[in-house]
Amino acid sequence: MTFRDDGAATLEWVASYLERVRELPVRAQVEPGEIRSRLPASPPDAGEPFDSVLRDLDQILLPGLTHWQSPGFFAYFPTTASEPGILAELLIAGLNQVGILWRTSPALQELEELTLDWLAQLLGLPDGLHGHIEDTASTGTMTALAAARHVRPRARVVVCSEQAHSSVEKACRLLGLEHRKIPVDADFRMRPDALDLEGACAVVATVGTTSTSSVDPVAAVADACERHGVWLHVDAAYAGSAAVCAELRHHFAGWERADSVVVNPHKWLFTPMDCSALWTRRPDDLRAAFSLVPEYLRVNEEVASLSEFSPVLGRRFRALKLWAVLRCHGRQGLQELIRESIRLAALFEQWVRDEPGWKLASPRPFSLVCFRREGTDEENEALLERVNATGEVFLSHTKLNGRYVLRLAVGSARTTETDVRLAWEVIRREAA
Amino acid sequence: MTFRDDGAATLEWVASYLERVRELPVRAQVEPGEIRSRLPASPPDAGEPFDSVLRDLDQILLPGLTHWQSPGFFAYFPTTASEPGILAELLIAGLNQVGILWRTSPALQELEELTLDWLAQLLGLPDGLHGHIEDTASTGTMTALAAARHVRPRARVVVCSEQAHSSVEKACRLLGLEHRKIPVDADFRMRPDALDLEGACAVVATVGTTSTSSVDPVAAVADACERHGVWLHVDAAYAGSAAVCAELRHHFAGWERADSVVVNPHKWLFTPMDCSALWTRRPDDLRAAFSLVPEYLRVNEEVASLSEFSPVLGRRFRALKLWAVLRCHGRQGLQELIRESIRLAALFEQWVRDEPGWKLASPRPFSLVCFRREGTDEENEALLERVNATGEVFLSHTKLNGRYVLRLAVGSARTTETDVRLAWEVIRREAA
Repeated sequence: MTFRDDGAATLEWVASYLERVRELPVRAQVEPGEIRSRLPASPPDAGEPFDSVLRDLDQILLPGLTHWQSPGFFAYFPTTASEPGILAELLIAGLNQVGILWRTSPALQELEELTLDWLAQLLGLPDGLHGHIEDTASTGTMTALAAARHVRPRARVVVCSEQAHSSVEKACRLLGLEHRKIPVDADFRMRPDALDLEGACAVVATVGTTSTSSVDPVAAVADACERHGVWLHVDAAYAGSAAVCAELRHHFAGWERADSVVVNPHKWLFTPMDCSALWTRRPDDLRAAFSLVPEYLRVNEEVASLSEFSPVLGRRFRALKLWAVLRCHGRQGLQELIRESIRLAALFEQWVRDEPGWKLASPRPFSLVCFRREGTDEENEALLERVNATGEVFLSHTKLNGRYVLRLAVGSARTTETDVRLAWEVIRREAA
Repeated sequence: MTFRDDGAATLEWVASYLERVRELPVRAQVEPGEIRSRLPASPPDAGEPFDSVLRDLDQILLPGLTHWQSPGFFAYFPTTASEPGILAELLIAGLNQVGILWRTSPALQELEELTLDWLAQLLGLPDGLHGHIEDTASTGTMTALAAARHVRPRARVVVCSEQAHSSVEKACRLLGLEHRKIPVDADFRMRPDALDLEGACAVVATVGTTSTSSVDPVAAVADACERHGVWLHVDAAYAGSAAVCAELRHHFAGWERADSVVVNPHKWLFTPMDCSALWTRRPDDLRAAFSLVPEYLRVNEEVASLSEFSPVLGRRFRALKLWAVLRCHGRQGLQELIRESIRLAALFEQWVRDEPGWKLASPRPFSLVCFRREGTDEENEALLERVNATGEVFLSHTKLNGRYVLRLAVGSARTTETDVRLAWEVIRREAA
């Protein structure tokens, strides 16, 4: 078999997978260890044809996959590998660029910078930000906080709300910083009156928290940060993509004053894992925190390499997939998809509101609905387990004010109104 | 156009790229800013067909790429996107799994654990190590050092040789650790008699340093680490892949005693960027350093998620490409490719040794040859620039004992004896 033949078979596998994914159980239907036990314990001595990889993918791995591309995937925050993104990943792998210095791939670096400028324009961020791509928001936030620590080396506290993402605490642990949680109001937003900046080097404000998609009062936080000379990092990993729609920009008021902002195109901007955008208006501080150029990389180059702004040295050509997604969808295509996610979430929210015995558990600024059935936490937890065990849809949960709450997040480009209706039917059926 | 049509065009683009890559100038032939200036400053409003991405890739981006897949690429450490790895990346993108908890993709987690076991077997590492994949060795080393810091929180020094990779210093900076460099012997190996472990939480020993591929005396370092209760991390990012060949295992003596080991299959094991393997015999310490499970991810699961051992929360299905590479090459296929790289490097080394006016600058344990022409540093630097400007081959440099040295690293699966002969011809021609 040649690369072209194997490639055609692989392409057909992916195309038909995306067609049949809605028929597959959304959540993997296996027990721990089951997948591994079906595979050989040792690698082969002689090479095998690529066919055998495709065969085992079907016969062995498939039942062990949770289908993030299913239109019935409503857990966590859904993510869509859109077609241009998938094909760009094939190009990325074939080109196999390694961005270290500018010269090791000028097109990688310049396309990454340009594409992040494009995305900043689409989201209404200010001109002149320095942008680059990290793998996930965990790394982007850690990178920003490392710069903040560099700016104020004696201030060792990072402040965020108690609803902030766990990656903030993880970054603090890595960086040796203290992590201070500020209480939230009844709508799960950071309380600016409770903001304590004593000893702080940075505040992380969240637009679209993970549990409820609540929005911290970024403008008020920015005021406080400016008064105290504290770095403001805005975590908009999920919700940031919504800023492509002008009518949703009010949720982001104040983020234009942030020292750094993170948005994940691999969440709600139809780009395959992984692709997290980090912008800063203080690139010199990032560079001061990270730049290290050993002799074997010292060349007469006037261009600062992106690795000087980042924890890692070598980078994939991720910009190519984001660029392909932005071009092939265009501003209007992205807006339509985001609006449809929000319309479907609003529909679902209305159904819950109208149904006796059910309650909404938080406001819905974007495409996430938090809700519960009247009754105990145990009953709600058992309900979620029954719903997910059907394989028809997959939802996740959180706890709010100590109570167990179900989360339905719309976000896949493949999810239609029919899929959201099905989700509500399954949930009511299993609750009955 | 449908996904199948666009996909066929993309696949054909990659197949023909790999056929014609040897005709393209290896190093990008552009000035800083040139690529960016040829692209629109703003994203399109309406979506464009995927064709336009392929067209601009050819017409605009291609001259800005440095062709890491060219058989004439001898700089840094070459990397090969082998065919099974490329096609697996297409599958990875189509499936678009996100590993967070085990349940979010059981097959991702179990295949990652299994594949790292397979690779450990291939490399002759001990049984029972816990393995997972990070993006690059920068992250793997940082992860290991965070665990070491957790084990000995009052010891704040990381010790490595002055030839260790810059990522060690970068990790120390991130983690707030001090970085102590130990001198090397005449062959650029860490001097164990100079090893100062006062206040050390970890030693990083390198098997295959970046400048010369020198090998630290790992067994002697392991003795010292055991005596002092210090974490031993072995950085074999480049050279580790050579351990698939039994006759090369002697270079790795002692690494079986390491607390953690990093090897990059994306360097010399024919796997596309990015894929860095990290093993540890102390998984509980990694988990203690990194585990943070917020409520929205707390489920009744007995399996520890890989994110509990790692700085990031969400992970790509990278295991699939490594698994495909190991299966489709098999142990024998990998051994043949590694042996051929080494044979070609030995040939080149012999030509340099035999040629009046040229000198070898370091021993060659693997596939990297360090050499220089008699004369000044400036002359050697100018020579390298002329050689690279031809576009026929691409080499890099380092400095050893203050002198400018050329590096020719063999490692691409697509490099043949003809390509190495061409490199030597170009170098001698430009020197004349």
